[in-house]
Amino acid sequence: MNRLLADLRIVEISAFVAAPLGGMTMAQMGAEVIRIDPIGGGIDFARWPVTRHGDSLYWAGLNKAKRSLALALDKPEGREIARAIITAPGVGGGIFLTNLPPSRGLDYATLKSDRADLIMLRLVGNRDGSAAVDYMVNAASGFPLVTGAGGAPVNHVLPAWDIAAGLYLATGLLAAERHRARTGKGQEVVAALSDVMLATVGNLGYIGDVAINGTARPALGNDLYGSFGRDFATADGRRIIIIALTPRQWRALGEATGLSDRLAMIGPMMDVDLDTEAGRYAARGAIGAVLARWCVSHSLDEIRTAFAGTGVLWGLFQDFFQLVRDDPRCSEANPLFAMVDQPGIGRHLMPGLPLDFASEPRLPPQPAPRLGEHSDAVLAEVLGLPPAEIGRLHDAGVVAGPDGR
Amino acid sequence: MNRLLADLRIVEISAFVAAPLGGMTMAQMGAEVIRIDPIGGGIDFARWPVTRHGDSLYWAGLNKAKRSLALALDKPEGREIARAIITAPGVGGGIFLTNLPPSRGLDYATLKSDRADLIMLRLVGNRDGSAAVDYMVNAASGFPLVTGAGGAPVNHVLPAWDIAAGLYLATGLLAAERHRARTGKGQEVVAALSDVMLATVGNLGYIGDVAINGTARPALGNDLYGSFGRDFATADGRRIIIIALTPRQWRALGEATGLSDRLAMIGPMMDVDLDTEAGRYAARGAIGAVLARWCVSHSLDEIRTAFAGTGVLWGLFQDFFQLVRDDPRCSEANPLFAMVDQPGIGRHLMPGLPLDFASEPRLPPQPAPRLGEHSDAVLAEVLGLPPAEIGRLHDAGVVAGPDGR
Repeated sequence: MNRLLADLRIVEISAFVAAPLGGMTMAQMGAEVIRIDPIGGGIDFARWPVTRHGDSLYWAGLNKAKRSLALALDKPEGREIARAIITAPGVGGGIFLTNLPPSRGLDYATLKSDRADLIMLRLVGNRDGSAAVDYMVNAASGFPLVTGAGGAPVNHVLPAWDIAAGLYLATGLLAAERHRARTGKGQEVVAALSDVMLATVGNLGYIGDVAINGTARPALGNDLYGSFGRDFATADGRRIIIIALTPRQWRALGEATGLSDRLAMIGPMMDVDLDTEAGRYAARGAIGAVLARWCVSHSLDEIRTAFAGTGVLWGLFQDFFQLVRDDPRCSEANPLFAMVDQPGIGRHLMPGLPLDFASEPRLPPQPAPRLGEHSDAVLAEVLGLPPAEIGRLHDAGVVAGPDGR
Repeated sequence: MNRLLADLRIVEISAFVAAPLGGMTMAQMGAEVIRIDPIGGGIDFARWPVTRHGDSLYWAGLNKAKRSLALALDKPEGREIARAIITAPGVGGGIFLTNLPPSRGLDYATLKSDRADLIMLRLVGNRDGSAAVDYMVNAASGFPLVTGAGGAPVNHVLPAWDIAAGLYLATGLLAAERHRARTGKGQEVVAALSDVMLATVGNLGYIGDVAINGTARPALGNDLYGSFGRDFATADGRRIIIIALTPRQWRALGEATGLSDRLAMIGPMMDVDLDTEAGRYAARGAIGAVLARWCVSHSLDEIRTAFAGTGVLWGLFQDFFQLVRDDPRCSEANPLFAMVDQPGIGRHLMPGLPLDFASEPRLPPQPAPRLGEHSDAVLAEVLGLPPAEIGRLHDAGVVAGPDGR
């Protein structure tokens, strides 16, 4: 959390991961981000993981530092209020981030008629406007069929395409706002989740591999493709990953394990040059066999000691419990984190933005709002509505506060 | 590719995915991005996938639209030239993106002494400066132990943490440049790859789940967590994913398959409310059993026909061949793509930026440079060096062109 974008106001009507992450990234840099949800919450309001009381840790995690306005978006008056807030005057305002289908008076053309310099960022599933969620896009990507041992698709659990899409939206927002600051002109910016996937598959060379080579990487379990790296069991039943991308890392691995001489035998044995990534990849079976015996005869502590300060690239597999309880990076010792009370959920370790700006002091992470927490404040501050009018909107069921009414 | 950031000049000294993706994202919005590599190429120059001639499709994919300067960064004169290019005057210049360790005259303090408003974006592995690559960070994240069927870690193949880090860097670059445009002040911006992972695990609610609930999601194969979704075999041996996140999607699924009545029996049978995500999650075994029999008795074409226009969320698993050869989204029919000749590699389908800016016409993707392709042009244009001096630098082995000399 910092104050770098404190002069911006962004209105978000969104759900799930991508657009909320884009908005939260802005909020964590100090922008005022007003998330408008239907009264009672949007379709992501109860998404798992949840507390035993049903409060969504997921929703709280993706809406930190935002303001919340609960509005009857199914009623014409509710949509009129949303429209007025999105297009309210102000130099840093008029920015709308959404994954709503373009309809119901909240489309770009309608909003632009109220505020000519509107910036609207719109996430769609497919470019033709048809729906697509991370799971569908991932199935099409090719990655599930090369994840794991092969034969059957293995889906990633991390919603990686959504995360990338959210961060592309954040980048696009700042690029469009830069353009507006220089030209006075707003615009619509559209990102399709499937295009994020397709661009990434291409960026990593997999489209070229099929098109140019007529080949595609196989499923390799946890083996690295085109280099050396895989997971190993330790004597005490933990699992680690060891990687050697560079000649320096390869030499360090031989020295730290005392296996340099044995590993060197693999070059002539397999007829490869172990000083190249391609050579180590071709000989990965033999390399792995030698290292596996060493790893399984050493405890994690012994391995940690052997690798400390050597330049060996390695890592420990942790489950979520071990990450949260044992990894010092996942604690208040890391300035990324602070213990913060999340209303309705409780005090727990909360991450801020994973960017340190030297110009800005790092402020503690701000919790997510309660649904409707800022309804009255937003109506008063942004639209200048008097208390009586705000009361009428509550009575009419157009607006709700944190009590749900 | 567009011209939105055509007034920016960014110098990049980087390798692998994250920082190169950050730089490429800027280049695809029109910024002049000068990637400086050691003569002969950096440690990622031969990364797989490669062509049969050893040219890296990966490197080409992550360096599109950049300019390339090949420089002897191991020689003091080479580093002096890099320093001069990074800090060269110009309103949109003085932006340096790197994952180099801070040393060798290319650290922030040294560069700032040449250009007070320098913006330096630095990616590190861990916040303490120690090395970490995507595989290591992923092992620590908790995700490999809940990917697949459980029991043993399954690494993602998509370098998801690198991709997120690269897009955070792009966001941070634009935020810092915005700050400089308003205040005249540059700054250093630092992102740690492990912090990107930690923030994401927290953002998705998994830290809170352990801290607040004392629980963590288990490995579920391809089942969705907290909702309904999983993969199914078709009669003709394909695999699809079917998802029902919302009541509307759930009803559509029953109607499209003709299984509404049978699915409705599951509610009382399992004593759950199938109109809730939690209910469908609890009953996912029974739901899956009913749907599995339907899917395996229908061909992909029959399923496609049954689901068309119904609002059912579903997707087809494709391998990289099928994605490239069969998916119309992965073709020139999609404006994201164009057929572009990549020098040394050949003409193939190349993606542009997955953001459409209404203000900017979408220009064809630009290929990656050949290593050193722009060495002479950069020295002449940015530093104003005369041809004789550029010739001397070639002769002294300080600079190389696309012929490697």
